[in-house]
Amino acid sequence: MMKIQDIIARKRDKGSHSQEELSWLVQAALNGEATDYQLAAWLMAAYLNGLNEDETAWLTLAMACSGERLDLSSLPGPWVDKHSTGGVGDKTTLVVLPMLTACGLTTVKMSGRGLGITGGTLDKLSSVPGFRMDLTPQEMIEQAKRVGVVLSGQTPLLAPADKILYALRDATATVDSIPLIVASVLSKKIAGGAETIVLDVKCGSGAFMESYKEACALADMLSETARHCGINVRIVITDMSQPLGSMIGNALEVQEMVSVLRGETKGRFVELCVDMVGLTLYASGVVESLEVGEQKALESLTSGRALEKARIWFEAQGAPGDFFEKPDKYLPKAPVVFSQCYEGRAGWIQKWDARAVGETVVDLGGGRRHKEDTIDVSVGIRSFIEVGSKVERGTPLFEVHAKDLPSAEKVAERLARAIAVSETPVQPQSVFLRGLE
Amino acid sequence: MMKIQDIIARKRDKGSHSQEELSWLVQAALNGEATDYQLAAWLMAAYLNGLNEDETAWLTLAMACSGERLDLSSLPGPWVDKHSTGGVGDKTTLVVLPMLTACGLTTVKMSGRGLGITGGTLDKLSSVPGFRMDLTPQEMIEQAKRVGVVLSGQTPLLAPADKILYALRDATATVDSIPLIVASVLSKKIAGGAETIVLDVKCGSGAFMESYKEACALADMLSETARHCGINVRIVITDMSQPLGSMIGNALEVQEMVSVLRGETKGRFVELCVDMVGLTLYASGVVESLEVGEQKALESLTSGRALEKARIWFEAQGAPGDFFEKPDKYLPKAPVVFSQCYEGRAGWIQKWDARAVGETVVDLGGGRRHKEDTIDVSVGIRSFIEVGSKVERGTPLFEVHAKDLPSAEKVAERLARAIAVSETPVQPQSVFLRGLE
Repeated sequence: MMKIQDIIARKRDKGSHSQEELSWLVQAALNGEATDYQLAAWLMAAYLNGLNEDETAWLTLAMACSGERLDLSSLPGPWVDKHSTGGVGDKTTLVVLPMLTACGLTTVKMSGRGLGITGGTLDKLSSVPGFRMDLTPQEMIEQAKRVGVVLSGQTPLLAPADKILYALRDATATVDSIPLIVASVLSKKIAGGAETIVLDVKCGSGAFMESYKEACALADMLSETARHCGINVRIVITDMSQPLGSMIGNALEVQEMVSVLRGETKGRFVELCVDMVGLTLYASGVVESLEVGEQKALESLTSGRALEKARIWFEAQGAPGDFFEKPDKYLPKAPVVFSQCYEGRAGWIQKWDARAVGETVVDLGGGRRHKEDTIDVSVGIRSFIEVGSKVERGTPLFEVHAKDLPSAEKVAERLARAIAVSETPVQPQSVFLRGLE
Repeated sequence: MMKIQDIIARKRDKGSHSQEELSWLVQAALNGEATDYQLAAWLMAAYLNGLNEDETAWLTLAMACSGERLDLSSLPGPWVDKHSTGGVGDKTTLVVLPMLTACGLTTVKMSGRGLGITGGTLDKLSSVPGFRMDLTPQEMIEQAKRVGVVLSGQTPLLAPADKILYALRDATATVDSIPLIVASVLSKKIAGGAETIVLDVKCGSGAFMESYKEACALADMLSETARHCGINVRIVITDMSQPLGSMIGNALEVQEMVSVLRGETKGRFVELCVDMVGLTLYASGVVESLEVGEQKALESLTSGRALEKARIWFEAQGAPGDFFEKPDKYLPKAPVVFSQCYEGRAGWIQKWDARAVGETVVDLGGGRRHKEDTIDVSVGIRSFIEVGSKVERGTPLFEVHAKDLPSAEKVAERLARAIAVSETPVQPQSVFLRGLE
């Protein structure tokens, strides 16, 4: 008979767990045989002494099997999913989902809420009137069958053990452990029924992994563990040292989604979406090369087919039928928009710090400090610059969308300090740091 | 404002806590601002990354001040206390208390229950009919004033934070951390009002600290922390590789107490008691040298004054008036007594493994595997040997006092394997391994 104290002691003493032990631990977390405080002690031991590749895969599988598993067998394959480790202005899912659908894939996706500087897809979509995100597994499958795409909140029925452990990690300073992150991410994807997963590990000041080295460590363990669990996985590392796209803040990001799908926007964010879709098509065997995948992805945008799929998708989930024609009619707007222009010597943007931008959105009330906080979806930042942009006196830098002028001015001051300008031209780095080859 | 997550993260990252942080942590444990699972995560981080001397002293003081403090000001000084880290057959407190009282000190002592192979004074005394161990602080002070000696269970009013943390440590495999042990031991002693404490760190297979090196580490940290907290402390390390005295088991150990106080017993255990009392008298400044202290201690036994004090003490706490005349009338007896004689080649006892003896007492039902277990105070082992004893075919080795014959026989087999005999004479090591100089 297993005892939780023995399992804790094994990890405390730098030992390795058997598959049986980790399965038992996950079951004990669910049925209450292991108390919250015993799980917390184990989590800290695992945080400090690590989990090896086998242990991480076993924990992942045990958590994936801890509840229901989404049965996609009635949907046409390949069953793909994407995941981003989260960043500032990262609304990739909103654009990529209708693009993938337009390219013929059926996409079933579960997303979460944001915490800290990292936004969450559910928060962004909560700015769309009527959009339902509490679909049951059955409703999800039915909608995916009918319109080819569905997105909902993480149902508590899938990977419930992850929910328990994550809540404890959040409260006990054990979130940023690579094996625990890997098991949490992959267990939910596996329970969601995915065969092929494209993972975007964000790297930079606005991401969880600030250094390239850390991002590689996370990417490698995700990759190893996924393979160990029998999942086809492709992992990219992308830049998060500056905000992604021009809008940061929930309703503003939905507005940017509309603009991209309408073909009104170009730039790094659109590039990233096209490349991610191309990679997904290639990874899942739908096209024979990455180039063909990217071409198909681009066509889904330029042809308007992705926009059309988005329209159908949103309507299926309860959004107004003319949402994509008149987003301004529906998206909440902040009462104050404060514009900031450049006032210094002419030059090139060398730094536009993603972390500072993310933190100011939290300060404005658009992000959560604690899980239980409510947020104001109307506030945020619109950026007119990116690294490499030429600026001179009077060039617009950003707009602050805020609930009042004092908070807008305060934030604008802080943002001005998040920008560094070089006197010589700056060559921006590619948004893909690794993995797109 | 402090946040528990930040405190956990500091220890997780091998940082050092400020006194303010540790005071806050202890208060947060009491008022619920820190949850059990957050405390458990911190305990594991402290277990793995350690606490330095300052941190240990600050934690000790914060726990000592977490509830009431026993006010000994109405009692004559010096206020002394003794503590043993626990071992097999360790009934030292029962003998030392009346000896100290006979030597003129007023002794107020709180004791605990046993767990695992380590016996507890409260369990031993629970075999004495009528003996009350749930005295209030006020009752303790009054009895100490009246008869000079009192012993009771740890009141939940003193050092309540220690109670909370200890229960969590027990459940989360974080018991055997030297700084956490030190803070737990000393916080209770300080809350109990002691000025001078004599600490007996047991070392050997029957003790918590099996190696001399570990015992020294614990002794040194106890010593440093006590000094840091302004407590006069003397620490000895004593041998626990073989059982202490000839009786192991609750009622049996009370029987041995009676026998020692009556002057019917000699040997290592009596030596230990005399030396501990002598050391306490010397450490608290009552006598000018250790030798004089030991002489006074011995006289308290030979004169019968310690026995007389024990009689008054027991009666004051509710035991029968003739308990020390007729202990057999009152102490519960096991239904089966199984005697084992030596059957091998003549020689000298080289090993009489304390751990094995302690474990067999637990097996017999005389000790707890889990805190909530009930125990049978009548069972136990009577030993006729010690390391260095000469044995030949037919020499009595031990008696097993058990609830039935099968369990007695099973235990006897196991005990036989706990004995090693040498063909050449064996010189036993002194019971004092360090500190009595």
